[in-house]
Amino acid sequence: MLKLYWARNTISIASAVALEEGGVHWESVRIDFARREQMAPEYAAINPKLRVPALATPGGVVTETGAILEYIGATLVHALVPIDPLAAARMREVMYYLASTMHVNHAHKGRAARWADQETSWADMAAKVPETMTASVAFIDDLIEGPLLFGDQITLADCWLFAIATWVEGDGVDLAPFEKMRGFIAAMEARPSVKIVRSKGVLD
Amino acid sequence: MLKLYWARNTISIASAVALEEGGVHWESVRIDFARREQMAPEYAAINPKLRVPALATPGGVVTETGAILEYIGATLVHALVPIDPLAAARMREVMYYLASTMHVNHAHKGRAARWADQETSWADMAAKVPETMTASVAFIDDLIEGPLLFGDQITLADCWLFAIATWVEGDGVDLAPFEKMRGFIAAMEARPSVKIVRSKGVLD
Repeated sequence: MLKLYWARNTISIASAVALEEGGVHWESVRIDFARREQMAPEYAAINPKLRVPALATPGGVVTETGAILEYIGATLVHALVPIDPLAAARMREVMYYLASTMHVNHAHKGRAARWADQETSWADMAAKVPETMTASVAFIDDLIEGPLLFGDQITLADCWLFAIATWVEGDGVDLAPFEKMRGFIAAMEARPSVKIVRSKGVLD
Repeated sequence: MLKLYWARNTISIASAVALEEGGVHWESVRIDFARREQMAPEYAAINPKLRVPALATPGGVVTETGAILEYIGATLVHALVPIDPLAAARMREVMYYLASTMHVNHAHKGRAARWADQETSWADMAAKVPETMTASVAFIDDLIEGPLLFGDQITLADCWLFAIATWVEGDGVDLAPFEKMRGFIAAMEARPSVKIVRSKGVLD
């Protein structure tokens, strides 16, 4: 039995949506950031990085959204990974862009203390987030074939992009010019997987 | 025929080492950052992100180190990817940590302008790099089974970690306390793949 440790409105959404796309039965464990439950010794024993998500599998705990998604795609929900190696590479280009560029841009608003010590630097970093996140949305918008990233077939990258898409307006991005991104969000919101994930509280 | 676009001493090292581990024949295209060749229209047509590496394949160009490495592992050098899904997940946990945490920590030294506008912020961010990179080396050191990440068998994650390992002393990390990391670097330096990549100029 799989057990997903998640916190509300975080990148955990991606892994929960991927599991629900396959109708996988999973045990839900909420980690409440407001109560700093991610810092508790019980959670540190699960994920010493003190972050979410973490997926407990019969063979051990897997961390990092990209590794969890690939594990789900390799073992449980094969349809989320294109069979053609070049199509799979296109999916992973997006996944690594989300991990190393777009999520990192977002994190400079709330997690600036990871990379600087002065409050003036944190304010400077937060002030730039609307610009960097708008650039990321523009980059992704250009890739979207519609309605999803690669047409009609959902992939691991769509689950991940949807999670980040729930943050972008809060990050100061005006979605009005990005018609394909708005269509992507609407297409994902219409999926049963997203409705179930919302009903489980992973997403407001 | 594969063509790898690379710049010296950058993360391109990872993709070049992976290709050489399989004895793959690849055409080498150096992009000289000192001459700002990554900004030239010819290169923008290859990789609009204006970064390296980029791998031109018969089906099109692949960008993002993680996507390039997975493509190499899926199509050409299968031995670099563990067959067991949980072992593959362990490899990808490291790959996503390198992409989204360790490389990002490093980038706050030379690329701070991506995330802030004030010179005082850039100085603050650069000053923290020895601390964040030492924390990353400590985290990775703890994972290394020895001599490589997962014992004797090299994986995609080892190729990537080696590229980043070439930066850490320049980032102010004292490697003396990290015996497993020093052993990892020595084991990689001894491999024919790394010697060939150095002889091609990808690495000083």
